[in-house]
Amino acid sequence: MNSEPSHPSSAREKLLFTPGPLTTSTRVKQAMLRDAGSWHCEFNERIQWIRDQLLAIAELSRSEGWEAVLLPGSGTHGIESVFATCVPPHGKVCVVTNGAYGERMIRMLQHLQIAYTVLRSPENELPDLTLLDALLTADPAITHVAAVHCETTSGILNPIEEIGNISRRHGCLLLADAMSSFGAIPIAVAGAGIDFLVSSANKCLAGVPGFCFVLARREILLANENNARSLSLNLADQLRGFEANGQFRFTPPTHSLLAFEQALREFISEGGLTARNRRYQSNHTALLAGMRKFGFKVYLAPELQSCIITAFHCPADSSFDFAGFYRSLSEKGFIIYPGKLTHVETFRIANIGHLFESDVFALVNAIAAVKQEMGFDASPVPADADPFANFQTVPLL
Amino acid sequence: MNSEPSHPSSAREKLLFTPGPLTTSTRVKQAMLRDAGSWHCEFNERIQWIRDQLLAIAELSRSEGWEAVLLPGSGTHGIESVFATCVPPHGKVCVVTNGAYGERMIRMLQHLQIAYTVLRSPENELPDLTLLDALLTADPAITHVAAVHCETTSGILNPIEEIGNISRRHGCLLLADAMSSFGAIPIAVAGAGIDFLVSSANKCLAGVPGFCFVLARREILLANENNARSLSLNLADQLRGFEANGQFRFTPPTHSLLAFEQALREFISEGGLTARNRRYQSNHTALLAGMRKFGFKVYLAPELQSCIITAFHCPADSSFDFAGFYRSLSEKGFIIYPGKLTHVETFRIANIGHLFESDVFALVNAIAAVKQEMGFDASPVPADADPFANFQTVPLL
Repeated sequence: MNSEPSHPSSAREKLLFTPGPLTTSTRVKQAMLRDAGSWHCEFNERIQWIRDQLLAIAELSRSEGWEAVLLPGSGTHGIESVFATCVPPHGKVCVVTNGAYGERMIRMLQHLQIAYTVLRSPENELPDLTLLDALLTADPAITHVAAVHCETTSGILNPIEEIGNISRRHGCLLLADAMSSFGAIPIAVAGAGIDFLVSSANKCLAGVPGFCFVLARREILLANENNARSLSLNLADQLRGFEANGQFRFTPPTHSLLAFEQALREFISEGGLTARNRRYQSNHTALLAGMRKFGFKVYLAPELQSCIITAFHCPADSSFDFAGFYRSLSEKGFIIYPGKLTHVETFRIANIGHLFESDVFALVNAIAAVKQEMGFDASPVPADADPFANFQTVPLL
Repeated sequence: MNSEPSHPSSAREKLLFTPGPLTTSTRVKQAMLRDAGSWHCEFNERIQWIRDQLLAIAELSRSEGWEAVLLPGSGTHGIESVFATCVPPHGKVCVVTNGAYGERMIRMLQHLQIAYTVLRSPENELPDLTLLDALLTADPAITHVAAVHCETTSGILNPIEEIGNISRRHGCLLLADAMSSFGAIPIAVAGAGIDFLVSSANKCLAGVPGFCFVLARREILLANENNARSLSLNLADQLRGFEANGQFRFTPPTHSLLAFEQALREFISEGGLTARNRRYQSNHTALLAGMRKFGFKVYLAPELQSCIITAFHCPADSSFDFAGFYRSLSEKGFIIYPGKLTHVETFRIANIGHLFESDVFALVNAIAAVKQEMGFDASPVPADADPFANFQTVPLL
C-alpha cells in the first residue's frame, strides 16, 4: 500500500495464526476506508449499537443494570481500568494465576499500589479451588478476585465460573480476563458471579486492535468513582460520558470501531457464539490432528486445552531452531507465535480470527514441508524435564 | 462498507473540519487493508522507522539521548503517562492553563494524587509569564511545569518556548502538550527546555487515531521508573520493551501504525514541516477570509490565533442555532466542531488533515448557503458580554 514499500509483499497476505492481532475479513478492513467524526451523531449511534451487541453476546441486559464500557487501548488497559476504578482504597485483590497474563495483573496491582495476594499454580495445571476457598476464608480483607479465563500463555481454559461461585460465596467481586475467550466460548457471566468481564476488539470477535471493553453492572462501576486512580483508565467517568452524550471522553480509535461494527455484523450473520465456537473447534481439531500426524506434542493435557490457542513442545532435535522454523513458515505465508512459558520451550499456534479449516490444512502442510526441509524429528524435550537438563551430557563417575 | 449499512452515505465522504480524528488521504486508509503480526520482525522495523521519523521532525537525535516512545490510546493517555511515569513520588506540577486541555491535566494529577498548583488565565489570553516566573520562585517544591502548546479549546497558540526557558531557569522539567501543533508548527524542543513533548497520530501528521507518542530524553524517562503509577501508562517500561525486542509490550493498534507509516511518507514527500505549515496556513487564511466575508467573527485576537483551529462566535440572531447549522453543513458533506469555551458561545473549524484550500473554499460556500437558508445575521454576541446577559431584558426602574 505504500508508495515506497520497505517490504514488498506478495499479493496474498500472510495468515496470522496468532492470538491477536489476527487475520480479519476483507470487509472488516474495508470498513476502515472512512474517516468518521467522533462527535457526529451517526458515529455515536454505532457506538451504542456496539455496546448493545456486546451485552447481548454475554446474555446481559441493561434493564438488569449491566453496561458495556469501551476504552481506547489494548486489553491490558481494560484490566487495569477495572483495578484502577473499582477497587476501593483499602481493597485487596486475590490474583489466581497460572500464566503470563495472571502475572501481568500482579504487576498492575503493584503499580497501582493496591494490596494483593496470589494463588499461583503451575502453567499446565488448573488453579486449586479448595485452596482458593481456604484463602478467601482465611483473609477477609480480600474484596476482589481476578482470574484469566483462557490463559494464552499455555492455552489452558480456567474454570472461571467455579471461581466466580467461590468468590460470590465469600462476598468478593470477580474480574474475569476473557480477552481470548469472549465471543467463542460461552461464559455464564451473571449466573456464575462474574462482576467484570474484560475483552478486546481483536480477539474472537475478529476486529482490529484499538480498544477494549468491560462488561459490568453500572452500580458496581460507579461505586468507587471518586477514588479512581487514573483519568485515562477511569471506567466510571467513561460510562458517565456515554450516558451524557453518547461519546468517548477522549478521541477514540474511530477506524477500529467501524471495523468492529462490521466484525460484529459478520459474527451475527455467521450464527453468533454457537457458530463461532463450532468453527474454532473445527479449526482446533484439524490443527491437533495435523500436528500429531507429524509428531508434534501438545503441551497441555487434552482436558485442559482450549480451542483458541495451543502450545506445542519445541522439538528436541538439534536441527530445529524456532527462529528458522518461524522464518520458513513466514516465507510460506503463515505467522505463528513464540512460546511464553517459563520452564518449557514451546511455540504456539492460535486458530481464531477469519480462519477456516482449509487455512489450518494449509498451515499444517507448510509445517510438514518446513520440517522436511529442516530435517528435524518433532519429538519434544520430555514435558517433565528441565529443558536445559540435556546440556549436562558428562556422566557423573 | 457494511453489508447492512445503518446509515447509507454518499459516494463522496464528508470532510472533517475537526481537530482529529480528521480527514486522511485514501492511501493512508488503504494502508490498513492488511493484518500485520505485531510480533513479526517486519512490523518491528516499521515501528523503529516511525520512532526515528518522529525524532527527526522534532530535530532531535538518539545520539543526544532522545527517544520517541509510542503508546496505544488517545493523546490523553500520552499526557497522563508522563505524569504517571516521570513525576517522582514527592514531585509537584505547575499546570499552565487557559483552556479545556490544561484543565484536563489537572484532573489527571488529581486522579494520580500528584501535588500541583495552577496558573490559570482567561481562555482568550496568553499565560502571564511574569506570574509563572514568580510562582516558580515562590514555590521551590515545584518539579514540573505542564502546558498546552495549541489549546484547541480556543485555537490559541501558547508561548511554549518561553515557558520552557522559564522552567529551565528554575530547574523544572516541562511537559508540552503539542497534540494539535506537532508536525505543523515548528517547536524548538531541545533548545527551549521542553523535556517531554506529547502528540498523537491523528493530528497534524494526518494519521488515524489509535496511539500517541512522547518525545523525551531516555535518562529522564527512566529516572523514576520504579515509581510509575500505572503499568499501561508506564513509559519507561515501554521504552525498555522497545529496547529489548523492538516490540510493544501489549497489543498495539497495528492498523493505525501502518496508516501512520504511510502518513509520514506523505508528510516527507509533501516537503516536511515547512510545507505542511504552509498548507495549513493557506487553509487558515482562506477560512478566515471567507468567514469574515459572510460576517462571522473570530473569537481570538489575531496575534493569538493558531493556523490549526479557529473558534468563531455563534451568531446572536435567534434564527441561528448550532444544532441546525451543524446538521445542514453535515448534509452538504462538511463536519465542523462545537465550541468548548466556558463563557462564550462559539463553534470551531479546524483546517488540518488531508484538506486543501479548495476544500476550505467549498466549506465556506456551504456555510454561506446554510446562512442564507437559515436566514441569520452572523453578528455575534459581543465578545466581552456574558452570553446570558441578553436574557435580562427587563430594564431596572
